[in-house]
Amino acid sequence: MARAIAHTNIALVKYWGKRDAALNLPATGSLSLTLDGFYTDTTVTLGGETDRLTLDGTAASDAETARVSRYLDLVRDLAGRTERAQIESENHVPTAAGLASSASGFCALALAASSAYGLDLDPRALSVLARRGSGSAARSVFGGFVRMDKGVRDDGEDCAASPIATPAGFDLCLLVVRCATGRKKVGSTVGMNSTEQTSPYFPAWVETHDADMRAAEAAIAARDLDALGATMEHSTLKMHASALAAQPGLWYFRPVTLAVMDAVRALREEGVTAYFTMDAGPHVKVLCRAEDGEGIADRLSQIEGTRGVSVCRPGPAARLVDG
Amino acid sequence: MARAIAHTNIALVKYWGKRDAALNLPATGSLSLTLDGFYTDTTVTLGGETDRLTLDGTAASDAETARVSRYLDLVRDLAGRTERAQIESENHVPTAAGLASSASGFCALALAASSAYGLDLDPRALSVLARRGSGSAARSVFGGFVRMDKGVRDDGEDCAASPIATPAGFDLCLLVVRCATGRKKVGSTVGMNSTEQTSPYFPAWVETHDADMRAAEAAIAARDLDALGATMEHSTLKMHASALAAQPGLWYFRPVTLAVMDAVRALREEGVTAYFTMDAGPHVKVLCRAEDGEGIADRLSQIEGTRGVSVCRPGPAARLVDG
Repeated sequence: MARAIAHTNIALVKYWGKRDAALNLPATGSLSLTLDGFYTDTTVTLGGETDRLTLDGTAASDAETARVSRYLDLVRDLAGRTERAQIESENHVPTAAGLASSASGFCALALAASSAYGLDLDPRALSVLARRGSGSAARSVFGGFVRMDKGVRDDGEDCAASPIATPAGFDLCLLVVRCATGRKKVGSTVGMNSTEQTSPYFPAWVETHDADMRAAEAAIAARDLDALGATMEHSTLKMHASALAAQPGLWYFRPVTLAVMDAVRALREEGVTAYFTMDAGPHVKVLCRAEDGEGIADRLSQIEGTRGVSVCRPGPAARLVDG
Repeated sequence: MARAIAHTNIALVKYWGKRDAALNLPATGSLSLTLDGFYTDTTVTLGGETDRLTLDGTAASDAETARVSRYLDLVRDLAGRTERAQIESENHVPTAAGLASSASGFCALALAASSAYGLDLDPRALSVLARRGSGSAARSVFGGFVRMDKGVRDDGEDCAASPIATPAGFDLCLLVVRCATGRKKVGSTVGMNSTEQTSPYFPAWVETHDADMRAAEAAIAARDLDALGATMEHSTLKMHASALAAQPGLWYFRPVTLAVMDAVRALREEGVTAYFTMDAGPHVKVLCRAEDGEGIADRLSQIEGTRGVSVCRPGPAARLVDG
């Protein structure tokens, strides 16, 4: 038996597009911030006739169980083991937060399962394994700022995340502004594939990505929140623009998403340092100084149509609780 | 004295970016539909000490008068004349419709002024002259569907509009859904320049534009509204996506713009043929079959935040009323 906790993360420089679907290798790198508030707590217990999965105490669907079982096959292959397992996973994410539970979920599963099957993986190897479940899960292995390399090898063994040191005094927070309830209409993998195959802007998205990675890393080293925020906004707008130019055009923004983006720009015109980023969904995440977080959250929660704002701080690396 | 009427037009395949700012030469061609409902009625009377301009019966600002006076200098140069003029211009466009009054305005001015100064320009030469005032004005010389070529000559003499025949039975209308009041924050020339100079997607916008022109012309010839609509949506989304990827990112959409775009997509899922296009402003124009216009207008006018819907039909070429 092994139990692990992994926190979710938000990409500041976005990942969008795959260079290999089977191995889940990204077309670009990414740079993220792991969050303290939201995490998945997963226990893997070996034994039984089949793999069984419970999510938040309820038996999972056959499709969900099959996806996790295929993932466990990867771990069993690595470990040379064959036992089935019972997986109990609890998501500590507010309902409808719209945060990618696959990031914390597959990272916690990778850590708990590899430990339960007797593997002793270093963080980099754990990141490679987590990536097979979900591209963003590779980043949740580490706390704080994280860099994900796209790698160049066909087998993906050089496609792993690594931590970026946070300079002393660079105290940030990230607000999660919920802009809708319910499931989104187009999942991120479908959106990526459509963009890659039909958007005339996808090649320029890939070509200009490394410059954003370098700019973001330099901004972190220089503790320059304005430079980091400007790069973050440019990255998310390029990602969404590449999808908008797909055929048919694809947008994850809801009307209230735009209202929050407008409000963040208006805050900056008033001299408040705040920058937005949006993933493949309607919600807006806002990066700001730690001391400004509550005040900005109050402001943004007054926008009609928003469904609450969570104030998050940088979070820790994934860890084993037992095992 | 000469008086001319010119109707406004909406680009179905968009113009965005200039290859020569001084001569107002576009980076791409465009394809438009002239509308019946909205027009400018302009009278030019020679005489007086200075050029004087009234807009809708009110003396224009010094800046507006100076812009028109510089434009009249082009006409006077062509005609070898020097007299000053009185210009009276009336815009028959609903308040806050957000339709480009520069298209109908500069086209009516080009026609009335060239006639008043004794020039007898053929439609193509009139289109070249109108373009010097506003890129979209070149298209308002003609009625119905109009093609604008970007041309390749440095002097712009091959950058002119020409009519596209509408096949019999291809009866369309275009709804103008007003999504805001007040002036937009970023004008189209500023937005184009910023996109051209800072957006990594601008080169692909230019490179893929000819294919959209060909697809739209083929769709018109085939009376294929779905093909025309799909090309129209792709063109506007690419234009707006190129601006979104500028630095800083630029969006003309308001929250209600997105709500109308979503509603048009929902109509199509219900089997109603309707497609959207947006210019450098918040309003949405919807292309549909003539017989569906009133019904769709009713539906869209119920969306919260919209400020009225105008049902337009294809409109006529610019014409002299007196002169």
